Amino acid sequence: MQYSEIQDLITSMAQKARIASRTLGVLSTEAKNAVLLAIAKNIGEKKEFIQRENQRDLDSGKERGLSSAMLDRLALSDTVIQSMIAGLHAVAELPDPVGEISRMNRRPNGLLVGRMRVPLGVIAMIYESRPNVTVDAAALCLKTGNAVLLRGGSEAIHSNRALAQVLQDSLQSEGIAPDAIQVVPVTDRQAVTILLAQEDTIDLVIPRGGEGLIRFVSENSKIPVLKHYKGVCHIYVDRDGDLDKAIPIILNAKTQRPGVCNALEGILVHRDIAEKFIPVIAKQLRQAGVKMLGCPLSVSHSGDIQPAAESDWGREFLELTLCVKTVSGFDEAKAYIEQYGSRHTESIITENYSTAQRFINEIDASAVMINASTRFNDGGELGLGAEIGISTTKLHAYGPMGLEELTTRKFVVYGQGQVRR
Amino acid sequence: MQYSEIQDLITSMAQKARIASRTLGVLSTEAKNAVLLAIAKNIGEKKEFIQRENQRDLDSGKERGLSSAMLDRLALSDTVIQSMIAGLHAVAELPDPVGEISRMNRRPNGLLVGRMRVPLGVIAMIYESRPNVTVDAAALCLKTGNAVLLRGGSEAIHSNRALAQVLQDSLQSEGIAPDAIQVVPVTDRQAVTILLAQEDTIDLVIPRGGEGLIRFVSENSKIPVLKHYKGVCHIYVDRDGDLDKAIPIILNAKTQRPGVCNALEGILVHRDIAEKFIPVIAKQLRQAGVKMLGCPLSVSHSGDIQPAAESDWGREFLELTLCVKTVSGFDEAKAYIEQYGSRHTESIITENYSTAQRFINEIDASAVMINASTRFNDGGELGLGAEIGISTTKLHAYGPMGLEELTTRKFVVYGQGQVRR
Repeated sequence: MQYSEIQDLITSMAQKARIASRTLGVLSTEAKNAVLLAIAKNIGEKKEFIQRENQRDLDSGKERGLSSAMLDRLALSDTVIQSMIAGLHAVAELPDPVGEISRMNRRPNGLLVGRMRVPLGVIAMIYESRPNVTVDAAALCLKTGNAVLLRGGSEAIHSNRALAQVLQDSLQSEGIAPDAIQVVPVTDRQAVTILLAQEDTIDLVIPRGGEGLIRFVSENSKIPVLKHYKGVCHIYVDRDGDLDKAIPIILNAKTQRPGVCNALEGILVHRDIAEKFIPVIAKQLRQAGVKMLGCPLSVSHSGDIQPAAESDWGREFLELTLCVKTVSGFDEAKAYIEQYGSRHTESIITENYSTAQRFINEIDASAVMINASTRFNDGGELGLGAEIGISTTKLHAYGPMGLEELTTRKFVVYGQGQVRR
Repeated sequence: MQYSEIQDLITSMAQKARIASRTLGVLSTEAKNAVLLAIAKNIGEKKEFIQRENQRDLDSGKERGLSSAMLDRLALSDTVIQSMIAGLHAVAELPDPVGEISRMNRRPNGLLVGRMRVPLGVIAMIYESRPNVTVDAAALCLKTGNAVLLRGGSEAIHSNRALAQVLQDSLQSEGIAPDAIQVVPVTDRQAVTILLAQEDTIDLVIPRGGEGLIRFVSENSKIPVLKHYKGVCHIYVDRDGDLDKAIPIILNAKTQRPGVCNALEGILVHRDIAEKFIPVIAKQLRQAGVKMLGCPLSVSHSGDIQPAAESDWGREFLELTLCVKTVSGFDEAKAYIEQYGSRHTESIITENYSTAQRFINEIDASAVMINASTRFNDGGELGLGAEIGISTTKLHAYGPMGLEELTTRKFVVYGQGQVRR
C-alpha cells in the first residue's frame, strides 16, 4: 500500500471509531454485556476458523525462524481459546463503572455538583505477538463504552483478522456498529506513526510489548500514552525482616514467572543481617537455578554470587538472574531504588512498624508492598477484576489499569437558574 | 545565552527540582502550610521591591506598545498583591490530599490493598503575562508536595524573578530546599522546547495562555500535558425551557466576563420556541452590547441578529459577540455541540426531566449543566477550593484541576508473607 492509502485508511478508521464511540458511550450495561456474551459464544462456534487462520501465522512464524517462546505466545490453542471465552464471561460479570456519579454535593448557591464517570472515547491498543490481547482489550474497551482500534504485530495478522471478523459479526448481531472494534490491517511502523497522529479522534494509546515498541510509541505519539517501559522490581530485606518470610517471597518473586514485568530483578540486604541471610538465600536461589550478581560484600558472603558489573544494577533481566546488594540501611535502599528502580513494584521485608510505614510513604513506585511478593502487582491480584496494562507514568493511572482507568469523570451540575456573581 | 548553555541550565534546574521533590513529597501538612504562610508574610513585607520590579516590566511593556488590557494583566497593583496573599492563606486552609488511603480492602489471600494519594513529582507551568500565576501555581504545587518549574512570559520577567526571590527566601527560612520552586530565567521559545524534553525529571506540563502557546507546548512536549485549547461553550434552550431562567443565565454567561474560557459563545434554540424566545433574548443581548450572528431562521426572528458566516460556528469570540442557531430538537443540538463544541462547558435550559437527564448523560464536555450559567465551570465555583487550570482532554483530569488533580494514587499492599500461586 502507498503511504497516502495507509493514511486515508487509518484516518477513516479512526473517524468511524469516533462516531461509533458516541453510541457505545450511552449503551446500557445490559446491552454491553449481551455483546460480550455473544462474542464468547461466537468464538466458541468459530474456533476451527480461528485456529486455521492462527495456523497460517504459526507456519509463517516457523518459516521466519521465530523462537519457540514466540511461537508459544502466538498459538491460539484450545486452552488459550477457552481462557479468552472465560475472560469474556468474567468481564461481563464485572460492575460497569460508566454512569456512576460521585461526590455529589450542594454548593452554597444551591447548585448540585457531582462527577459522572464516562468513557474516554476511542482507545488505540498497539501490541506485539499475543493475539489473545485482541479479544481481551476489545472486551475491556467495550465494557467501558470505548471504541477501540487494535493494532497487533505482523506475526499475528491472520489470527487478528479472524478474531476481528468474529468480534464485528458479534457486534452486528447485537445491533451495534461494528466500527466499535476495528483491527488495523496494516502492520508496519508507518501505520503506527499515522495512528499516533490521530489526536482529534483518538483519546488514548496503550502500547504493550517490548521496551523498543513502547519507546517508539511514546516518542511518536501526539495522543496521551499510558505505558510502562519496564519493570525493575526490588525486594529490600530490612534488618528487622523475618527471614522465614523473606525466602519464600524472594523465590516466588524471582522464579514463579521470570519473564514478566513484576518479577524480581534485585535484592537489597541490610548490612547487619547480610552475613546471616545472604548465604541462605543464595543457596536457595542457586538451587532454583537463579544466577546471582552481587556487590563485593555480597560476593564475600556466598560463593554462589558472581561480581556484578555497573551495568547490571537496574537491569531488567527477565530471566533467572538477579542482583544482590548490601545496603547500610533504609536510606541507602531508598536511594538505590530511586536511582535504579523503574517505579513499577518495590517490596520490603520487615517486622518493624516504623520502617514499614516509611517504606509505604516514601518509596515512589506504582505499587509499594510490605512482606509480599512483587508478583502481586497485577490488576487481577490487586482486586481490579481485569487488567489492560500497567502504568508507571503518574498521570491518569499509576499501576495496573482496570475498567475504571479506561474511563474519566466529567462534572455534572444541576441548577435552578443560578448565575455567577 | 548559547543554546548549549540554556540546555545545561534547564536540565540542571529540572534535576534539582526532581531532587527537591523527594523531600517535598514527604513533608507534613503543617510544614507545607508554614511555608505558605511565610510566603504570604514575605510578599507583604517585600511589596515595594516586587512593585518596583513590576514597574520595570510595565515600563518596557509600554515602550513595546502592549495593549492596555495586557498592561492591566501584567500589573501587580496593591489589589493584586492583596489577592495573592489571600490566595496563599486560602490554600493553606485547604485539606491536604497527600497521604489519603482509599479503597483499602482485604483480598482473599489476606493481602490488604489500598491506594495512597501521592504527589506527581515535578510540574512545569508555562504561562503568559499574569505574574500572579507565579505565586498561585507555586502555592498549589507546594501544598500537594510537588516541585515546580515556572516559566512565565518575557513581558513579566522582572516581576517573576522578584517573586521567585521572595518564594525561595521563604522556602529557605522554613528549612526547605529552594529548588522546590524555580523560575526559569530564559523566556524564549527555545527554552520551552528544552523544558518540554525533560521527560526523565518532569512529570507534568501545564500550559496556560492563548491557543498558540498551548498548541506549541502540546506539539513539542515529550512530557504529559494537561490543557484546554479554548472554550467554545453553548447554552441549548430546550422547547420545555423556562424562559425566565434562560434570559438571566444567557446574559450572565455571555456578559459577566466575556474574555474567559467559560464564557458563552453560542445559543441553540429549539425551533418550537424560537419565534417567541429569540426576539426577547436578542433585545436583551443587544441592550447589553452583545453582537449576534445567526442562522437564517434566527435572523428572521430578530432584526438585532446579523447573518453568520460558516466560520462563525464554533468560534471562540472572547468578546461581546455570540452565535444563535435554531435546532429541530435535542438530537440536532447534540450533533451541533459534537461538531462545534470544545468539550469545555455545555448547558441546557429545560424543565423536562427526561431531556435534562439525556443532556447530562449524552453530552461530552468537561462540565455539563442544567439551568445554570456556563461561568460556573471553575475550580472555586465547583467546590475544588482552588484551580490550577482546566483540562478538556480526558486523561487524568477532565474539567477544573484542583489540588487532587496535582496528585496521583499508588497501590499500597500490606502482606504477611504472601506469595503468588
